[in-house]
Amino acid sequence: MKQTVLPNSMEPDPQQLIWKERALTTFPLNEMHSFIEGSNDQALHTLRLMQQIERDPVLAVKPEYYEMSRDEHRKLTADKIARLSQYMEQDAPDFQVFQDRLNLIAMIDPQLGTRLGVHLGLFMSAVRGNGTDEQYKYWAFERGAMYIKDIYGCFSMTEIAHGSNVAALQTTATLDLSTDEFIINTPHVGATKWWIGGAAHSATHTVVYARLIVKNKDYGVKTFVVPLRDSNHDLYPGIAIGDIGEKMGRDGIDNGWIQFSSVRIPRQYMLSKFTKVDSNGNVAEPPLEQLSYGALLGGRVTMVTDSFRTGSRFVTIALRYAVGRRQFTVKGEKMENQLINYPLHQKRLLPYLAWVYGMSIASNQIQSDHKKILNNLDQGVRSGDMRILGKSIFDLKGLFADSASLKSTCTWLTADLIDECRQSCGGHGYSAYSGFAKGFADHVVQCTWEGDNNILAQNSGRITIQRVMSYLKNGKANGNYSFLKKTEKEGVILKNDQDLKDVNKLNSALQNVIFRISLKCLNDLENNGKNWDIIANEKLALSKLYAAEYILDKWIFKLSEVQNKQVKEELDNLAILFAYTNIEKFGIHFLQTGVLSNNTFSQLEKETYVTLGKIREHVVGLTDSFKLSDFFINSVLGNFNGDIYHNYLEIVQNLNDSSVTKAPYAKEFMAMLNRVTVSEREKDQKSAGVLKKLS
Amino acid sequence: MKQTVLPNSMEPDPQQLIWKERALTTFPLNEMHSFIEGSNDQALHTLRLMQQIERDPVLAVKPEYYEMSRDEHRKLTADKIARLSQYMEQDAPDFQVFQDRLNLIAMIDPQLGTRLGVHLGLFMSAVRGNGTDEQYKYWAFERGAMYIKDIYGCFSMTEIAHGSNVAALQTTATLDLSTDEFIINTPHVGATKWWIGGAAHSATHTVVYARLIVKNKDYGVKTFVVPLRDSNHDLYPGIAIGDIGEKMGRDGIDNGWIQFSSVRIPRQYMLSKFTKVDSNGNVAEPPLEQLSYGALLGGRVTMVTDSFRTGSRFVTIALRYAVGRRQFTVKGEKMENQLINYPLHQKRLLPYLAWVYGMSIASNQIQSDHKKILNNLDQGVRSGDMRILGKSIFDLKGLFADSASLKSTCTWLTADLIDECRQSCGGHGYSAYSGFAKGFADHVVQCTWEGDNNILAQNSGRITIQRVMSYLKNGKANGNYSFLKKTEKEGVILKNDQDLKDVNKLNSALQNVIFRISLKCLNDLENNGKNWDIIANEKLALSKLYAAEYILDKWIFKLSEVQNKQVKEELDNLAILFAYTNIEKFGIHFLQTGVLSNNTFSQLEKETYVTLGKIREHVVGLTDSFKLSDFFINSVLGNFNGDIYHNYLEIVQNLNDSSVTKAPYAKEFMAMLNRVTVSEREKDQKSAGVLKKLS
Repeated sequence: MKQTVLPNSMEPDPQQLIWKERALTTFPLNEMHSFIEGSNDQALHTLRLMQQIERDPVLAVKPEYYEMSRDEHRKLTADKIARLSQYMEQDAPDFQVFQDRLNLIAMIDPQLGTRLGVHLGLFMSAVRGNGTDEQYKYWAFERGAMYIKDIYGCFSMTEIAHGSNVAALQTTATLDLSTDEFIINTPHVGATKWWIGGAAHSATHTVVYARLIVKNKDYGVKTFVVPLRDSNHDLYPGIAIGDIGEKMGRDGIDNGWIQFSSVRIPRQYMLSKFTKVDSNGNVAEPPLEQLSYGALLGGRVTMVTDSFRTGSRFVTIALRYAVGRRQFTVKGEKMENQLINYPLHQKRLLPYLAWVYGMSIASNQIQSDHKKILNNLDQGVRSGDMRILGKSIFDLKGLFADSASLKSTCTWLTADLIDECRQSCGGHGYSAYSGFAKGFADHVVQCTWEGDNNILAQNSGRITIQRVMSYLKNGKANGNYSFLKKTEKEGVILKNDQDLKDVNKLNSALQNVIFRISLKCLNDLENNGKNWDIIANEKLALSKLYAAEYILDKWIFKLSEVQNKQVKEELDNLAILFAYTNIEKFGIHFLQTGVLSNNTFSQLEKETYVTLGKIREHVVGLTDSFKLSDFFINSVLGNFNGDIYHNYLEIVQNLNDSSVTKAPYAKEFMAMLNRVTVSEREKDQKSAGVLKKLS
Repeated sequence: MKQTVLPNSMEPDPQQLIWKERALTTFPLNEMHSFIEGSNDQALHTLRLMQQIERDPVLAVKPEYYEMSRDEHRKLTADKIARLSQYMEQDAPDFQVFQDRLNLIAMIDPQLGTRLGVHLGLFMSAVRGNGTDEQYKYWAFERGAMYIKDIYGCFSMTEIAHGSNVAALQTTATLDLSTDEFIINTPHVGATKWWIGGAAHSATHTVVYARLIVKNKDYGVKTFVVPLRDSNHDLYPGIAIGDIGEKMGRDGIDNGWIQFSSVRIPRQYMLSKFTKVDSNGNVAEPPLEQLSYGALLGGRVTMVTDSFRTGSRFVTIALRYAVGRRQFTVKGEKMENQLINYPLHQKRLLPYLAWVYGMSIASNQIQSDHKKILNNLDQGVRSGDMRILGKSIFDLKGLFADSASLKSTCTWLTADLIDECRQSCGGHGYSAYSGFAKGFADHVVQCTWEGDNNILAQNSGRITIQRVMSYLKNGKANGNYSFLKKTEKEGVILKNDQDLKDVNKLNSALQNVIFRISLKCLNDLENNGKNWDIIANEKLALSKLYAAEYILDKWIFKLSEVQNKQVKEELDNLAILFAYTNIEKFGIHFLQTGVLSNNTFSQLEKETYVTLGKIREHVVGLTDSFKLSDFFINSVLGNFNGDIYHNYLEIVQNLNDSSVTKAPYAKEFMAMLNRVTVSEREKDQKSAGVLKKLS
């Protein structure tokens, strides 16, 4: 035993419970891991990168991480960026490897991922997306930004009074014809650039989103490279920058605010792949302007991946705890029951496990789509071939729609997942060392940034309704909306028990409910003078249902490729639970559109418990399949060895020296407890004797 | 203007917007405030206490609060306790005033409320509830614990491996007949007392929940006073205490763990109002044992109040921001639209406003019930009058049921409220200075402690089903369950538009759905061999619906007492929105039990928007009615003056000196950016020349 135990006492046995269940795992973990990662090769690639991260002396994340101050996080994150710059030089020119590395790091150290992501993802994406080839070459390679050399960029889009409505940003870039310069200005407090990651302490340059003003004409918001600091890291004149200070999470990022007071930059610093301004003040605006807003798309795609990885981490912690923790005795048993044996506990956690598997599929799919489309687009822009360009723009719109739905749905889902997993660990979930607290605080900003979830969901819902409208008009439905061709305006889709066990039927139910809600919306729009605001709730539901359908559809396809029978069975059960979960959540819509009846809905509730019971048997194997080492778990509650209580006490003792038994303020505290009476302290000035004298 | 503004720029105008809407408030705020606080006198009492708190030099909470480290919070909280001990001496013997004071403090400094609450609420409640009168007199008054003198107590109930299942705690208290002492022991790591607030650095004494072992017989869990530290604040031998360390929130509380290694206490330190052990080892266990578990009840009642106050604070911040913030232009308008004008934004926030009003009613009611019942109980125990005692126990059971439902429902609701309010403020909600981050982190532990919400909700749901069962048997339904007499097994309750506008009908719908879900559960139990686990979901819904019905029922009653017509109209609208919100949330149950039809459900969705529109008109007045000064708001986004952006920038600048433009690690960071090439750093050891030499 690890510590002395008195006889006749019932020592908890989480370790034994977890290992016993682990031994019962019958399906091959490696095959499951390959499914999750997308392929054997990808699985191996991921494991290799994980080894490099967890063994690296600078990149390592320890339990101390949960105790650090803002300043400590900031410095450590900067050290890690320096370390990563070496990996980047090694990975080059394969930036995909570096991106994969960053995605894994984001799981345990999200602030590091973001602080570097702002430079590589946002700043560089903006230069690449909005600049000419020559401009990109100069800033990225000649200067070295691509390798985190010479230049560290930030991304000055949002202002204190403008976030989602980019077109209404107030910062101005006014062309001064006499000097061939732009004057960048923050006209008032409301236009102060705000939330700018890297601005406070890191960035040497920024891409500024500002209104192009030429000869008093406002051409709308364009992008400009503006140097912020010189090679001594001193701020240029006219630049005022401050630290945004304390945030909910991600303390390692030096978010800042920037005010420009008539800062002059050469005209050539305007990024001009699309809009071009010459030295005479002639402005050329090409029709492809819409391509210039793509800088945030990559971030949205990454957040789907991040939701999957973050979700896999926290659901593993909660499920290992649920297997090891006992609570309350069931009639006839001597030992208390494992938490995971309670149907309610299964109902709270296992749908999230199913969602994590689903998000892995979404992540693999949208990552691959994104790469393909960007490549085609580059080819199109370079060749000027309007056919390729047209197709690319169409695909890009599709990706915008998919990512709007998936980013919002997956980041919300993961926020709920972390919170529910924390609550499911009872009080211990509230310990910082469980990982949930910082995990939640770090994660939830993803529901807001790079496209507020509510706005993205409204966009996604609107797109679905529009696609349905055009399908009704011309019978055409393409890409991920081609399912519309298989839908019907009425009729029960899920009729009985048998239908509920058929994953294709379940998917068809999702497809039909999307179609029918859209029909109802079109009808409402007709009756309400096209007021889209009044169907906001339906758009929200449509966005979430679209994400569910997207995932289930791809899941079914991928299931057909799985060879191993046992792996397939597990994935079947998870897919069915995934479908049940989404149908139950939007039950009202399913009932109201007649996709299933009251009766079948009750059956579905019962079937859910049956499916939960099946999945419960293999929760240890199904979470071990994510292959997260204790380093990536970084939680006292979720280590692989299952020795929850000893692990927990050990970390708490290591980090809080229990040989110090008095508080630094013990003396003052004792003085309070040992204080004399009120009347002694006020020298009896309210005593009867005194009051008599004073009367 | 506050700062220089360039011409032709559109400066945001939140201040103007908020003051314009404030000027349009037509109902009398004082009357509304009296309704919220329960009476005119109570409203005045609250305002007086608020003034004392916000002006006190030690108790004041400033924006710096959001930046403090754990150590700083701990020390400051101890200072504030010393300060509060003076108020306590002044308030004595009226402890209710001090409790009211503490409830207000909890709104802005929850950790202070709790750290003192553990001593006064938990430790003292346990001594009072489980000790004899003489024992209570000694510890509370002779020693002075009641005035925070001499003794500072903590509450050693939970263990690392046991929280909710108190009866299974593992710490032992074994009577040593030879010395007339109890030996308190922690048999193994699993029995380590864990999460003990005040243990790490404050407590001199604790009440330990331990198994009473006499002559090898285990009598179950009883309570014992155990001294932890002497008058020098040194730990007694056999006592090991450590700091639990970093938590999600409430850093000001010194939670600790305690291990007892054969610690001896006099037999008389056992709290023996109920169970008594004499020096010969005779154990007397009276039938009223069930009264000894009441220590947590007061905490649950307080959490309903806390949910109301916390909710009022955050919903005020979000609604002021929603009025002042503009986003996106509506067709035909030049200025962007106010956030609050969007139906979706109204749908996100206004139901929470209605809930806050509802929670104020619940808070007033349950506080008053709690006081009355405890007084009766004391009277019963002292007089030994079994009639009074029997009635008290019956009432106590009712209060247990009410508090289980209300504590879990209101704390969950408030957690969701804070999170949604934060998201509704976009990125700025993520700033620590908005207050949401710490507010959420501090609040959510209430969903777990002093009765885990899921377990409480299961209890509440079970009680409802049992009450329905007994009503079916004998036609009797008492107290807050007397509504059962007005319910019917079938038939549509909400038939049309008119019904949806009748708050009595809406309440009847809630009552009927509770009755009918219970009937369904009873049926399921019959068919499933009385397996209560399988109806866990229904019990959860019943608990939440019971809370809604509890509130709406009292709301309707209180509405009849409101004199002012305008105030009444506002409260009517809020009550209707409250009902709609709960009916929509549990829509599936309403449809499945036939309480309303598919058709009426669609009408209800439409009516919701109409009601939202009415409430939207007076959101500034309806939140001003809480009468929270900027001190109690403590958020850069929600100040009374509405000058959001200047307030925000000012606080950020004050707390983050922007004259320091370089990071402490700027040198290392620049060294990274200015580093030489890889091949220079590795002295060309991979160059073709070298490789040739080495080949």
